[in-house]
Amino acid sequence: MPLACWTALFMFLWSRTSLDSSLRVRCFPMKALFFDDALAVREVEAPRCGAGEALIRVIYAGICGTDRQILKGYSGFRGIPGHEFVGQVVECNDAGWIGKRVVGEINVTCRDCKWCRRGLRRHCQRRTVMGIIDRPGAFAEFVALPAANLHQVPKEVPDKVAVFTEPLAAACEILEQMPIPSGTRVAVLGDGRLGLLVAQALRHAQAEVTVIGRHDDKLGLASGWGMRVAHAGKQSIPAKSFTVVVEATGSPQGLEQALQIVEPRGSVVMKSTFHEPARFDTAKLVVDEVTLLGSRCGDFPTAVDLLRNNHVKVHELVSRTFPLEAGLEAFQYLDRTSCLKVLLAPGA
Amino acid sequence: MPLACWTALFMFLWSRTSLDSSLRVRCFPMKALFFDDALAVREVEAPRCGAGEALIRVIYAGICGTDRQILKGYSGFRGIPGHEFVGQVVECNDAGWIGKRVVGEINVTCRDCKWCRRGLRRHCQRRTVMGIIDRPGAFAEFVALPAANLHQVPKEVPDKVAVFTEPLAAACEILEQMPIPSGTRVAVLGDGRLGLLVAQALRHAQAEVTVIGRHDDKLGLASGWGMRVAHAGKQSIPAKSFTVVVEATGSPQGLEQALQIVEPRGSVVMKSTFHEPARFDTAKLVVDEVTLLGSRCGDFPTAVDLLRNNHVKVHELVSRTFPLEAGLEAFQYLDRTSCLKVLLAPGA
Repeated sequence: MPLACWTALFMFLWSRTSLDSSLRVRCFPMKALFFDDALAVREVEAPRCGAGEALIRVIYAGICGTDRQILKGYSGFRGIPGHEFVGQVVECNDAGWIGKRVVGEINVTCRDCKWCRRGLRRHCQRRTVMGIIDRPGAFAEFVALPAANLHQVPKEVPDKVAVFTEPLAAACEILEQMPIPSGTRVAVLGDGRLGLLVAQALRHAQAEVTVIGRHDDKLGLASGWGMRVAHAGKQSIPAKSFTVVVEATGSPQGLEQALQIVEPRGSVVMKSTFHEPARFDTAKLVVDEVTLLGSRCGDFPTAVDLLRNNHVKVHELVSRTFPLEAGLEAFQYLDRTSCLKVLLAPGA
Repeated sequence: MPLACWTALFMFLWSRTSLDSSLRVRCFPMKALFFDDALAVREVEAPRCGAGEALIRVIYAGICGTDRQILKGYSGFRGIPGHEFVGQVVECNDAGWIGKRVVGEINVTCRDCKWCRRGLRRHCQRRTVMGIIDRPGAFAEFVALPAANLHQVPKEVPDKVAVFTEPLAAACEILEQMPIPSGTRVAVLGDGRLGLLVAQALRHAQAEVTVIGRHDDKLGLASGWGMRVAHAGKQSIPAKSFTVVVEATGSPQGLEQALQIVEPRGSVVMKSTFHEPARFDTAKLVVDEVTLLGSRCGDFPTAVDLLRNNHVKVHELVSRTFPLEAGLEAFQYLDRTSCLKVLLAPGA
């Protein structure tokens, strides 16, 4: 019997044994973190797979700043949050996906509007966004996504590395949006999860990166990777001294700080999303003719390549892993410790 | 006797008759509008001409939004405001300038710092700015500027047209900073002095311009010039419908409005400067990956060319002209009527 047949037989048997029989009618319960004014662990119905969709068993899901903002009211989302994950396909019309280890693009798009047709699908005006807009997210045992959104994880990329694909893609988006020539003086403002990914992505693109933060341990990581670092609380950062400043503080105050240190005609890239509005001195922007660039999701294959080739270090970014049932504790731990990445492990 | 000799003789006689004899020792009194917590007409010492500078008799000076913001505390300026003017050179080491009708670039730069050497002199970090930063402005009988800042006004451009060179150059700066291909859907938010100049400059560059404002008379002007117009108070402006939005409302609230109507991956150009900080929803900027571009002073020769060739209409923008002594009344008139351009005529 050829290998393909053995694989198909294995997948068939696996699908019968690893899920209860209700999967076949696409209706079974699962555990999830559910946000509805408050976050709680709930038993909910697992997502039903629409045509062209895949059902994915979540292996790890990462908690990011946007998830924490959602708990403060950002985007008005109600349901299962979570949009950074790695998982394994357990159900899909296209049998070729079954059993594959995958990461998934979070924007589910119509593929028909003017934005989709222009190749800017992530800006589709009819999109849903996993865990953020009208679509259940990955803080659950299972999540559903169109197969077209999936990217297979290369075998040499471990689960705890692959789970960084989504935020690393977002970090790389900056390079898609603006040219950053080799040697450009870039400050990454914020030494958190996203800041340290952005700093690595830009350094890989040959920018001269300085990470500016307030945490000795996090700055120590960047310094250990050979980057310039500056402690915002202990060192004065010269005004107007960077050509590009990436605002990744996760705080509305970050924008004012970024505008202080960017040079005239320079660019401030905003990566953080907040529920509250930001205040800033428009005169500084106008007089110094600064460009403020909003930057969101990015290209997955670029991020997967960086991870496969070890160009970006993420192992050291994982502070702790919690089982899904301890999801509330995981969020509290993040609030309490201002640590780096916290993962949820629904299968644990 | 050749024409040049007659001209020199005329200039010599004119300089003796049109100013009192104290000019020759560069110290004489003049009338000016002076801001020092409050605006007042004062008799002050006329500016002394430094090496390479020219003393200019101000014919007309225009009041702009920045001047009104200075009265609210913007830039912390104390002294004679005013940076839009047309005048006639009455004293200069380079005799070739004497008698010439001129407009003047407002940034006085060191010509030696890294910004000047990069060709970005308007961003010189040691600059003074006429009527805005550490340099007396044009709401006075005389003003001094380096001869290098002057541009001769072509004879076919009347005084009341030439006085628009500075704000029109600022309007044209947008085209220096970003490509706006022919047919680009542009909204100019604000139907005031600056908005109507920006709209004309961009339409001349073949953009498809819509002026959005709240004043029937001002929108009527734009409409009469063949532009699309929309009354923000009477019509709903579709969200995400313009590729470029120029914020020229002169109000911190304009930014929020601009972000509503710009399309994803579009650009908002900020032309207004305010004393107060602006508040805005950073999530909109980040999620839609909007570019916010600060834009200030522009190239004078470009503006002079547009005026000489009648590509931009400014006659209809002059609402009223006041003598310098009635400067306070001129500012009050602007506050009271929300009219278009008000000029001061120091020689009247």
